[in-house]
Amino acid sequence: MTGEAIADFGDEPMTGTSDGALARAAGVTAWRQIADAIEADVMNGRLTPGSQLPTEARLAERFAVNRHTVRRAIAALAAKGLLRATQGRGTFVEAKPLAYPIGRRTRFTEIVSREGHEAGGELMSAAETVADEETARRLRLMPGAPVLRTEVRRFIDGTPVSSGTSFFPLPRFAGAAAVLLETGSITRALAACGVTDYVRAETRITARLATGDDAARLDLSPGRILFVVDALNVDGTGTPVQAAHVVFAADRVELVVENG
Amino acid sequence: MTGEAIADFGDEPMTGTSDGALARAAGVTAWRQIADAIEADVMNGRLTPGSQLPTEARLAERFAVNRHTVRRAIAALAAKGLLRATQGRGTFVEAKPLAYPIGRRTRFTEIVSREGHEAGGELMSAAETVADEETARRLRLMPGAPVLRTEVRRFIDGTPVSSGTSFFPLPRFAGAAAVLLETGSITRALAACGVTDYVRAETRITARLATGDDAARLDLSPGRILFVVDALNVDGTGTPVQAAHVVFAADRVELVVENG
Repeated sequence: MTGEAIADFGDEPMTGTSDGALARAAGVTAWRQIADAIEADVMNGRLTPGSQLPTEARLAERFAVNRHTVRRAIAALAAKGLLRATQGRGTFVEAKPLAYPIGRRTRFTEIVSREGHEAGGELMSAAETVADEETARRLRLMPGAPVLRTEVRRFIDGTPVSSGTSFFPLPRFAGAAAVLLETGSITRALAACGVTDYVRAETRITARLATGDDAARLDLSPGRILFVVDALNVDGTGTPVQAAHVVFAADRVELVVENG
Repeated sequence: MTGEAIADFGDEPMTGTSDGALARAAGVTAWRQIADAIEADVMNGRLTPGSQLPTEARLAERFAVNRHTVRRAIAALAAKGLLRATQGRGTFVEAKPLAYPIGRRTRFTEIVSREGHEAGGELMSAAETVADEETARRLRLMPGAPVLRTEVRRFIDGTPVSSGTSFFPLPRFAGAAAVLLETGSITRALAACGVTDYVRAETRITARLATGDDAARLDLSPGRILFVVDALNVDGTGTPVQAAHVVFAADRVELVVENG
């Protein structure tokens, strides 16, 4: 397998054997050799983050193995978080996880742009509702107080990285939904309601496995790990402005806590 | 199943049917009913954290179901992190995850004691070695510089919560291993080498699934989620004193970032 590139299949026969099949290394299974070759191509940059792998059928043909063997290699790399096998759309190379600083000023768009990536946001829903006990406690409201509930997905270079539900006190943030819908930016939505600055008061981090719903929303294999982040943002007077419950694809971000 | 207690099996027949079997709720599978009953007992405190569940055989007998059904209920609760099924030693109720603050002053023993729990530490190994490139970079040493490498497991109320490898510059911390062995405390080990105070400069958090080795070390089911925490501690002058790579059982801690 040494020296073979998965990325650039030309029409020339592959190295190893004259018919392009695997030159079997002693004691190494075929799927492991294929996985190693793909991993090497990711590491040396022949396969770039976000690029799509050839189909299973095509890989199987090229390596002269059956599709089951190819599938096993891909599953092993997906389990390592190196590839992302999606339902129906194919298999893609995962990007290197983004270092995501959690501090007093945690601004998704700023963080992503600073790293040279494109930040995206999509408002999936916005509705007026009432605060349950937990939300009320976090926002320092009475249970049953009116709140704006939003669901937002966030993207880095077009790949979804998080999906979250936020609660904003009403009537203070009645105008936030329209700005969020237009810009995808929490910072601008809060600014439109007179909050010129806000800081992260607390962040709680737990983890769980992605359900089918999470997987669909985040374009992820079910069973991958999610960070579950509960965050509270407050304004300059310390008054809560946003309580968020966000899941991040743990393959796609590294949470970084920096202490001055 | 309503009102049945898993915790206190007496000799009286269980409610529901005269022979102690499940009173099947329409549309709910037997394993789900058993899981719900056990979960209710954990929630209402009949089953306390750390307590051991009756054996599968005994539960099967009491519910008049086969062991496979009991096993499925236990597996579902283990997947939720509510129970911990260990190899050979039985099934235990998980404790509520400890809120573990990550800040400038992150001291395991202080954090655990403050929450009313007993902190424990076990030095598994200590050896002089040389810094690889990554360790050297973090500790601001030359690659190949001598370092003390330690492996420590940490416990809350006797349950392992983390297992980590740390590197300390030598010769500065030559005396640290003996103190660590005796006390299990990093703080005391550093103090013995003249570091009266240290602060956390940076913490990086990723996640992965527990391997068989992790599971054995942390008394965990393989496949449970681990937080992988890379931490750097520095002394009062900002000089690195410890680079740590620690895995935490994500079922047992909630990482909390507080911003002043």
